[in-house]
Amino acid sequence: METSEEAKAAAAADYPSIGDWETCAADPSYRAAVIDLLGALAYGELSAFERLAEDAKMAPTLEDKAALAGMAAAEFHHYELLHARLRQIGADPTESMQPFAEPLESFHRMTAPADWPESLVKAYVGDSIAADFYREVAVRLDDDTRELVLGVMADTGHAEFAVAKVRSAIEAQPKIAGRLALWGRRLMGEALSQAQRVVAERDALSNLLIGGVEVRGFDLVEVGKMFNRITEAHTRRMAALGLAS
Amino acid sequence: METSEEAKAAAAADYPSIGDWETCAADPSYRAAVIDLLGALAYGELSAFERLAEDAKMAPTLEDKAALAGMAAAEFHHYELLHARLRQIGADPTESMQPFAEPLESFHRMTAPADWPESLVKAYVGDSIAADFYREVAVRLDDDTRELVLGVMADTGHAEFAVAKVRSAIEAQPKIAGRLALWGRRLMGEALSQAQRVVAERDALSNLLIGGVEVRGFDLVEVGKMFNRITEAHTRRMAALGLAS
Repeated sequence: METSEEAKAAAAADYPSIGDWETCAADPSYRAAVIDLLGALAYGELSAFERLAEDAKMAPTLEDKAALAGMAAAEFHHYELLHARLRQIGADPTESMQPFAEPLESFHRMTAPADWPESLVKAYVGDSIAADFYREVAVRLDDDTRELVLGVMADTGHAEFAVAKVRSAIEAQPKIAGRLALWGRRLMGEALSQAQRVVAERDALSNLLIGGVEVRGFDLVEVGKMFNRITEAHTRRMAALGLAS
Repeated sequence: METSEEAKAAAAADYPSIGDWETCAADPSYRAAVIDLLGALAYGELSAFERLAEDAKMAPTLEDKAALAGMAAAEFHHYELLHARLRQIGADPTESMQPFAEPLESFHRMTAPADWPESLVKAYVGDSIAADFYREVAVRLDDDTRELVLGVMADTGHAEFAVAKVRSAIEAQPKIAGRLALWGRRLMGEALSQAQRVVAERDALSNLLIGGVEVRGFDLVEVGKMFNRITEAHTRRMAALGLAS
């Protein structure tokens, strides 16, 4: 896995700086977009904490339970970092998170794992999609926000334990592979559908993503490409897990 | 609240050192007792994580949810410290925790909060009783184990937010005070009953507590006194919350 420093260097090499937070936030629509983004990420981390803690109950052993609980605790720490940043830039964290509560709760409601292997796949897929999204969005941000986002991203990867567990579950019971492959598709489908809902409803955030803020001459085609890259990475990961997606 | 350093100094002043882990663990029954103790504490922290994360669902606001989730994350960190120590001294963490799973799960099953005020009271009471127990037991331990136990204890107090919340809930709805007072008694009662079950069933741990290891000339009367001190502290805290216990 990349270290935080490597990820930052890679991001910096690909995309030149657009300036620091102070400079960029002088534009009210940029400021609103970043507050939206941080609110969405913060609620995402808090709800991930909640659901992982819930799913940990299905763990067959104490070690498994502790592994998922450890992921949950890491997500809570991310939440704290994002929450602190919202406060620091003068935003109300609760207000900033509220618009994203319903889409994220819908996602989790539609993707409640039925058993332990589904929990593992969800933990792994969720963690990976989140890392992809953090990496994609980081390049569109001012230096200070980018540093925060890459810092949080660098602390993902707590789901790596799930890979070996899922593989051995499939070896032990080859017939579950079909169901888990379907499950992986459903997770990605629900994630995209909620993401599209957010893009449609949140003007400021969408503007950041489609370039309305004129940050990078970014357009709707680019957003589509971003979702495609994330989907492709998901497909590769599912294949590596032994699951056709 | 006392700092970790103050707590250690106070403990050291009251009770002279019985030696370091290396020296004390040469006695197999001392070693077994400490493994029992760390196993019980580790499972206690892991189950506290699970239950707090579960109870956080009842939170009426995002801020409240995050406060309880933050306690859960802190408990998970304590679990990690205790787990790492078990490994370090050559014990199997899962095996060491297993005997305490049933009493702790029973405790939580018997004390599932019915609503948010009950969750708050349980978080506060649980955190406080745990801190009292850590402090009591620390003085009976070798220097290294004592340092670990006091270090974990010094990171409790995350439930302080609950005090103001419970007080204002009672002010808003004075009639819930009776039910919450009863709830506080039930929490303490169940905790004592499970603790007594553990003392009855775990020879090594009981020996440490009642002095069979000849550490301090400690006896059964002293264990009773310890439980009494914890109960008295609980009673004072309930009164401070505006709840007769």
